[in-house]
Amino acid sequence: MFRRILLSVVFLLATVSLFAQTERTQPEPTINQDNTVTFHFAAPTADSVFVDGDFLPDNKRHQKMQRGENGVWVYITEKPLEPEIYTYSYFINGNRVEDPYNIFVWRNCASFYNIFIINGERTRNYVNKDVPHGSVAKVWYPSASFSNSRRMSIYTPPGYNPRGSKKYPVFYLLHGAGQDEDSWLGFGRMAQIMDNLIREGKVKPMIVVMPNGNVSQQSAPLEGSDSYILPTFFPPRTMNGEFEASFNEIISFVESNYRVKKSKDSRAIGGLSMGGFHSIYISANNPKLFGYVGLFSPVLDPSIAQPANKTGFELSEIYINFEQKLKTQFEKAPLYWIGVGDKDPYKPQVDKLRTLLNNNNLQYSYNETSGGHVWTNWRIYLEEFLPLLFQ
Amino acid sequence: MFRRILLSVVFLLATVSLFAQTERTQPEPTINQDNTVTFHFAAPTADSVFVDGDFLPDNKRHQKMQRGENGVWVYITEKPLEPEIYTYSYFINGNRVEDPYNIFVWRNCASFYNIFIINGERTRNYVNKDVPHGSVAKVWYPSASFSNSRRMSIYTPPGYNPRGSKKYPVFYLLHGAGQDEDSWLGFGRMAQIMDNLIREGKVKPMIVVMPNGNVSQQSAPLEGSDSYILPTFFPPRTMNGEFEASFNEIISFVESNYRVKKSKDSRAIGGLSMGGFHSIYISANNPKLFGYVGLFSPVLDPSIAQPANKTGFELSEIYINFEQKLKTQFEKAPLYWIGVGDKDPYKPQVDKLRTLLNNNNLQYSYNETSGGHVWTNWRIYLEEFLPLLFQ
Repeated sequence: MFRRILLSVVFLLATVSLFAQTERTQPEPTINQDNTVTFHFAAPTADSVFVDGDFLPDNKRHQKMQRGENGVWVYITEKPLEPEIYTYSYFINGNRVEDPYNIFVWRNCASFYNIFIINGERTRNYVNKDVPHGSVAKVWYPSASFSNSRRMSIYTPPGYNPRGSKKYPVFYLLHGAGQDEDSWLGFGRMAQIMDNLIREGKVKPMIVVMPNGNVSQQSAPLEGSDSYILPTFFPPRTMNGEFEASFNEIISFVESNYRVKKSKDSRAIGGLSMGGFHSIYISANNPKLFGYVGLFSPVLDPSIAQPANKTGFELSEIYINFEQKLKTQFEKAPLYWIGVGDKDPYKPQVDKLRTLLNNNNLQYSYNETSGGHVWTNWRIYLEEFLPLLFQ
Repeated sequence: MFRRILLSVVFLLATVSLFAQTERTQPEPTINQDNTVTFHFAAPTADSVFVDGDFLPDNKRHQKMQRGENGVWVYITEKPLEPEIYTYSYFINGNRVEDPYNIFVWRNCASFYNIFIINGERTRNYVNKDVPHGSVAKVWYPSASFSNSRRMSIYTPPGYNPRGSKKYPVFYLLHGAGQDEDSWLGFGRMAQIMDNLIREGKVKPMIVVMPNGNVSQQSAPLEGSDSYILPTFFPPRTMNGEFEASFNEIISFVESNYRVKKSKDSRAIGGLSMGGFHSIYISANNPKLFGYVGLFSPVLDPSIAQPANKTGFELSEIYINFEQKLKTQFEKAPLYWIGVGDKDPYKPQVDKLRTLLNNNNLQYSYNETSGGHVWTNWRIYLEEFLPLLFQ
């Protein structure tokens, strides 16, 4: 009876669903023994139901499901899937519907995605294992540049004791356009990768600082006092030099509130896409700060962000004399690591950066993977870059 | 062009939607000047679209929307809505659909809900304001009782410095059945209420500890190594005494890792529903620990959880001799605060507790509100209880 009462209470808030009374002990979709995947969706009165997601080949997106018994529509993948994290959605009469039988939902930018994982070598560090876990905190730092406080995520490794004597190196890890301080913790799997690689002894325990790189916002959507409006994919003032110029505020906050080492050899910076762009210019403008620079599918040219900087585009001094700044930065060369996918639309940007580095005989590591401008690649780059840090 | 490339990249992951190419600067639903609300949903090929949510009166749930131009369905509330946080969903041909134009999504138990807020006196402390913010960390504590590590959320107030000398009181705040260590931070608005009330000087700066009260799980869904399965609403071993018996592990972790005061006058415990139940018995079994006890729609009788304790029900010693324990607890009486809604299905449980307290002349504060077993009430109770603590 207690159970029935409890359920009735939950149902005050809960959805009315065809399956609502049915106990299901496994989440959707069903991952079969051979790693094919079966999707079920109950929609008895729908005219059509499609499933879509990045588990489907590019030329076979939006697969029509077959109507089965009781109005449950079914789709089975043609082939077993490779180990990876995948997203999917259903479309009923053309409208996107999330899966009510999968609680595995992450946000990227302003959209939510149902997720499933095919387990294997590729994904073994993306899941929570029975290993010591670091802590993840959402903290606010004061920004004199923007006259407000701004939110960031900070990972401290297992065993970190704010009152102890041990000091740690710091990795500043930046997000892409439209993303925010939460992004590396969802699709990026930062905490899981760190926990697992630290446990294996492959990565030095370190603090990972994930700030918000959109200076026109305080925080991820809804987390600040300014953000109860629909976020735009590419906010203004994100690639105009302001974030880079204010970055010392972040370092200063971290170095006065955490037990950290304060030398170039103990500071790394890296990021994906726009975060790679930010990492290029923050490190070039502060040549003595970072011993390690990780560029994951980075953009190089600030002028391509011009449409977002609506008040007209005046090139910030952050972006001026870049080649000279780069040469100065490499006088005591950092470990400079670049990763990009062979189908990434920004690959020409990376090629341009490489040409500049090559022409000046500046040493860097170049890592080309298959695929495009996607989290699949950024997780791989993170896993490859982390073991190189602070060794 | 950059914008177009960026968008195409995002669209690799994003949904195909009727509005996908349309810029919208305001989120859905539209809150009109008079606090009526207009809902829009684009579904040109749907036979019917309904809107449902707790903004509708109980006898008028599931309102049919009117098909308008371009297949956009519309519903306008009959009356202005009172200030509150509301949830809503759409139903296309009977299937629940989330609103793709509202990023305001919270999880409760195993379901996600679109949210909107009508601003006003009631909700003024539920939103992020331009005030100093505390930090919220997800940390793991070692549990000898369960031979694993377990996750909890910890709020530290603005200005908390782990290396400083100032010490803080601690409020242990517990969730209800089916919920977890994240729940008070979503629908509960704990961090916003604390930040805002601290700023107004109405609440003492304190640390708020939100553990996971389901000992059969390590953590919220997907956050631990054991939780990649669909969570059940009411896991086993949640009201069998194990959590209460192990609670000292949580206190011990907090008191050795945070700058906290360690006296009865500096410890409070409280919770909603099952968390109220836990608070009753943790405080009664540890009569010297807590100076403040807050019971928000609590359950009293452990036997009503019997169906969930599937291996048969043996009454834990935690629940035995309760009346005597209560009398001992009240020898040095805590501030004992009870809140319940007049339509709460558990009100008979609260009545039973009050009878027991009355029969023994034990002093408590009783606060009856309108409504049922819902977050609307629990947020109110939190706001009312917090200013009483540590004064």
